[in-house]
Amino acid sequence: MTALSPLAPAVIPTLPPIAGVRLAAHDCGIRYVGRDDLMVAELAPGTTVAGVFTRSLTASAPVLWCREALAGGAARLVVVNSGNSNAFTGAAGVASVQRTVEASARAADCTAHEVFIASTGTIGVPLADEKITDALPAVTAKLSPANWDAAARAIMTTDTFPKVATRTATIGGVPVTINGMAKGAGMIAPDMATMLAFVFTDAAIPSALLQDLLAKGAQKSFNSITVDSDTSTSDTLLLFATGQAGHAPVGSAKELRDFAGKLDELLLELAHHVVRDGEGASKFVEVRVAGAASPAAAKRIGLAIANSPLVKTAVAGEDANWGRIVMAVGKAGEKADRDKLAIRIGGVLVAVDGQVAPGYDETPVNDHMKGRDILIEVDVGVGRGKWTVWTCDLTHGYIEINGAYRT
Amino acid sequence: MTALSPLAPAVIPTLPPIAGVRLAAHDCGIRYVGRDDLMVAELAPGTTVAGVFTRSLTASAPVLWCREALAGGAARLVVVNSGNSNAFTGAAGVASVQRTVEASARAADCTAHEVFIASTGTIGVPLADEKITDALPAVTAKLSPANWDAAARAIMTTDTFPKVATRTATIGGVPVTINGMAKGAGMIAPDMATMLAFVFTDAAIPSALLQDLLAKGAQKSFNSITVDSDTSTSDTLLLFATGQAGHAPVGSAKELRDFAGKLDELLLELAHHVVRDGEGASKFVEVRVAGAASPAAAKRIGLAIANSPLVKTAVAGEDANWGRIVMAVGKAGEKADRDKLAIRIGGVLVAVDGQVAPGYDETPVNDHMKGRDILIEVDVGVGRGKWTVWTCDLTHGYIEINGAYRT
Repeated sequence: MTALSPLAPAVIPTLPPIAGVRLAAHDCGIRYVGRDDLMVAELAPGTTVAGVFTRSLTASAPVLWCREALAGGAARLVVVNSGNSNAFTGAAGVASVQRTVEASARAADCTAHEVFIASTGTIGVPLADEKITDALPAVTAKLSPANWDAAARAIMTTDTFPKVATRTATIGGVPVTINGMAKGAGMIAPDMATMLAFVFTDAAIPSALLQDLLAKGAQKSFNSITVDSDTSTSDTLLLFATGQAGHAPVGSAKELRDFAGKLDELLLELAHHVVRDGEGASKFVEVRVAGAASPAAAKRIGLAIANSPLVKTAVAGEDANWGRIVMAVGKAGEKADRDKLAIRIGGVLVAVDGQVAPGYDETPVNDHMKGRDILIEVDVGVGRGKWTVWTCDLTHGYIEINGAYRT
Repeated sequence: MTALSPLAPAVIPTLPPIAGVRLAAHDCGIRYVGRDDLMVAELAPGTTVAGVFTRSLTASAPVLWCREALAGGAARLVVVNSGNSNAFTGAAGVASVQRTVEASARAADCTAHEVFIASTGTIGVPLADEKITDALPAVTAKLSPANWDAAARAIMTTDTFPKVATRTATIGGVPVTINGMAKGAGMIAPDMATMLAFVFTDAAIPSALLQDLLAKGAQKSFNSITVDSDTSTSDTLLLFATGQAGHAPVGSAKELRDFAGKLDELLLELAHHVVRDGEGASKFVEVRVAGAASPAAAKRIGLAIANSPLVKTAVAGEDANWGRIVMAVGKAGEKADRDKLAIRIGGVLVAVDGQVAPGYDETPVNDHMKGRDILIEVDVGVGRGKWTVWTCDLTHGYIEINGAYRT
């Protein structure tokens, strides 16, 4: 295992139980030795589901299945393996998902479309799905409302810490809980495809409404982070609502304002964990773009900065190299006024009106660059569009992890 | 200086003289100590000019000037400094270009719009243009038809070798010569913005026709290479035709077929030199995409592969990690048929019909990955669009060069 990320949180929170959710982790021997590589979550009857998936055109077989299953809006079981992503495995991959889904449905006494599957690990290697299906009796026997930590660890691949978060919200005055877990270290880790995240709540929310909430929340969290600009074939974010909290039925999105806010917070916390575990990361970087033609334009400019190898290596080198930020704004292809462009690093005005700020003193900026959390703010001077994205730096560690031979 | 790139050509060719072109190199003290940092090329009256520039929205003051000057279609002088790119220098940068152009026009007894300027080096630092204008008498005194090598060296920044190429073509049975020089090591070198290339010929070609030839040639050469996906604020490619070769006037593009072919070859050779001097490069990578919906789609897929940090680090690690190529195809956003996708590495079929090739033996592919020149071929299975792009690998050397403190 790789050493713990220097950006890992000091404390991993213990997640509370959620009525209607039982979890189990199991070592079924897919790839890893001596650690759990299978996670199963059982959901109470009546659970609704929402999902957001990779936009990759070479999406994995499990992603294709989840997209199809999602149409039913109901979920009873989630089966996740680490070690093999079952991506680019052709007809064999589809058959493997089919067998897993059918065996799981029998085990949970539900329909196939209530079973959600995710796989993370090597691309292009047929998945030995019988290892999963053979393990179903053993893993089912372990199901417990308290297994959050083991579950979060079982979905890890090259992750150096389990990524979990919890929030409490109220719906109609009744408290509801939201728990989430995620895995992911590069957009693709070394042969280890994937960002996966599973969020569970005891709220009762119809699936269409749940889908709206999740799609919106993903935009400002998982869709606003980048480690290396690469896109997994397996990215999967699923949200399950068991409906056991006992609040009155929800009639409109308005009643979910508090829930939506807490869900957004939780998604952002999980997304930040993924960046903080970015391969080789030594700095956590927040890029705030303002003054763009639209929020979408601001996001594209932000991602151009966050994905620029030259910006990322400069951050790794603790170098307040704002010229590279100018370059990244210029290449984003979005409207920007070169002569109104302003850049702040660590809150200090570095450049303004298209040139270095009058009397610019590098000292406080250099001090900021030596810290773990780096803030870059850019105003491109053409409108009111704003967006924030997050990334990590590009270090020797990334090359080390990803340039090593597969063995 | 950095050590010579392992991908540098064994021999740097000596360029022949071109009637109507005299060059000089000079140490004017802009940034470097003890080496030339000013290149001047004087062109005979009647010289036509074409240009292709960065699409960056934060283009440098010299780029903005060249775009304006190009409208005149005529050139008498090219003045290039290395060490400072005069980019993101606001009104001061524009004034600096203006003063340089005016002093140069006086020295060459031509109009301001016949003077072309390029600058390469640090972004955001005002250019001490008086060092250039003060040096004009000294540099002009050195002008000679034989100074190609010194000129090519004077425009280098972090380049580890001078990049030159030459071709002979015939127009109406009369031989004409084409010489070219380029500089560039990253799309932006460490603080050193820019890819610059200057091409000279004694052919007589009207500027509109010349522009067509250059724009087409750049598409398949300089616009099909990438080192790190970053785009310079200063990229400049200029082509000058002195008209001294003595061939009959050219009436149509058809008469330029041989010339166009040789020009394309020369542009591609210079572009490959830039990749071979890519920061930290240890492998030269050709990515051929076929079966795409259109040539433009094939190019975007090719660049997605060539710019993928995960593909580039796998190449650096000599790892035939074709799963990452699948991932890059998937993220390109262009039409691709996952179940018809085929991948060859070093000519060996690795994946076909959306899965690993039957009986795939990694041995010959691993041998290929150990070489200096890597060939990746992808057929995305949806159409007849083809394109080839070139890149280098992503190594510790890149992080070393770009993560170092500026100082």
